[in-house]
Amino acid sequence: MILGQENLNIVLFQPEIPQNTGNIARTCVLTNSKLHLIKPLGFSLDEKHLKRAGLDYWSELDLTVYDSYDELREKYKDSTFYFSTTKGKNYYEEVTFKQGDFIVFGRESCGLPDSIRESDPKRCIRVPMIKTSLRSLNLSNTVAIVAYEGLRQIGFPNMK
Amino acid sequence: MILGQENLNIVLFQPEIPQNTGNIARTCVLTNSKLHLIKPLGFSLDEKHLKRAGLDYWSELDLTVYDSYDELREKYKDSTFYFSTTKGKNYYEEVTFKQGDFIVFGRESCGLPDSIRESDPKRCIRVPMIKTSLRSLNLSNTVAIVAYEGLRQIGFPNMK
Repeated sequence: MILGQENLNIVLFQPEIPQNTGNIARTCVLTNSKLHLIKPLGFSLDEKHLKRAGLDYWSELDLTVYDSYDELREKYKDSTFYFSTTKGKNYYEEVTFKQGDFIVFGRESCGLPDSIRESDPKRCIRVPMIKTSLRSLNLSNTVAIVAYEGLRQIGFPNMK
Repeated sequence: MILGQENLNIVLFQPEIPQNTGNIARTCVLTNSKLHLIKPLGFSLDEKHLKRAGLDYWSELDLTVYDSYDELREKYKDSTFYFSTTKGKNYYEEVTFKQGDFIVFGRESCGLPDSIRESDPKRCIRVPMIKTSLRSLNLSNTVAIVAYEGLRQIGFPNMK
């Protein structure tokens, strides 16, 4: 973090696939956003695939790893949290993001646990997709889409 | 393509990394967009990595492969083309997309050739990022960001 306050806070709940976390780390560095990872992770942070996807950014990344989701929430009691989920009530572009907001993303295989989604249904947001029985968007793409909508709304601070 | 006119047309100029094309194919299927690939490709279309990243979408993908960029332009003479490049004059969210527009993305290693960029500078668009000596965003993330801004502007047809 080289530019004062972070633009956004990106939270990955128990991410499973290292290439996704690597790409998301790259997005965080390039948007002046902080990355928060909730354990357990599906990979080691020095695993070769993670390095391959994101190593040249890793030293510039503002990263914190937490043992639990509760630990993160306890640390940022006064912040606004959004939850990205295919079961979201609102569409992601309909909410109003502000600088420093947190956006929480679930596991690649099964998304966010019910307990987190149901804790604040109004803050659950979804990305529109055509109806299909297939999988949803790749996780790193979902993060990029939602983060850049937040950044667009707050005017891309220090990014233009 | 199951819903009439496509929402957007995504063009990858000589893509190199099969996982990126796989993820972009997934984004195209889920947004009712067509994918156009310009040869040479850095992979075989049945390569195991491409299958791993996108196989369960591949049969639903509206895909055309071209021997050259000129072949694509000749086929779609009357369409509007945008060019995503870090050297773009305009930011991606400042232009006005319409349904059926084409957005062209360059190679992972070196972007679009000068000849394509310089053919229409007003239609060259860039995604804001903080200034750094590092690489830019992952290609599939860039496609997702620009495509979803276009989709947002045109009201997410058949996606909500």
